[in-house]
Amino acid sequence: MSEQRVAPVAAFQPPYYAVVFTSLRTEGDAGYGETAERMGELVKDVPGFLGEDSARTPGGLAITVAYFRDLDGIEQWRTHTEHRAAKEYGRAHWYERYSLHIAKVEHSHGFERTPR
Amino acid sequence: MSEQRVAPVAAFQPPYYAVVFTSLRTEGDAGYGETAERMGELVKDVPGFLGEDSARTPGGLAITVAYFRDLDGIEQWRTHTEHRAAKEYGRAHWYERYSLHIAKVEHSHGFERTPR
Repeated sequence: MSEQRVAPVAAFQPPYYAVVFTSLRTEGDAGYGETAERMGELVKDVPGFLGEDSARTPGGLAITVAYFRDLDGIEQWRTHTEHRAAKEYGRAHWYERYSLHIAKVEHSHGFERTPR
Repeated sequence: MSEQRVAPVAAFQPPYYAVVFTSLRTEGDAGYGETAERMGELVKDVPGFLGEDSARTPGGLAITVAYFRDLDGIEQWRTHTEHRAAKEYGRAHWYERYSLHIAKVEHSHGFERTPR
């Protein structure tokens, strides 16, 4: 995994929105990786998209948090044609279960180690 | 990993709060695992604590999302003596960087695969 992919971990200036997507996948890939990469590119074009972080415990939970400036961006992404098709396919093939939480960030802060 | 540990993935009835903690660790454990387990137990006693989910990509990002019914619970946990000491130790030893986002959940939903 390149440094670039784990770089975000950013705290933005509130208010903004966090979309928390927590999932447990079915076994196998079934095209998941390719579609996930495509979605990761598409979402960057959504107005107000700030960035996203993902983590996945092998064989366990995956959590993706996408940050948007406002609800308009989230709604655009929610109704994006290609994204909708991917979600439908995901419910049929990729996910055992998931939860989605759309939340307005009221406080945030970041920490970065001081190089020694 | 036992089924019990990955079980949550729950969508609660809004409004409630999500505390998103995204981190990149330093190398090695340095007592992290033991303290993390202890914190995972302590937080269960905080009034209004609803549950938490964690995922960590090996060698990459870790994301923990803790859910609370209200800000009072988050404040109690933030100022909990043993938790404060752990956070201080963490900034000195465990984390390269992290971000924390406290957000009020406005919408949520869950999906569970229908057994076939």
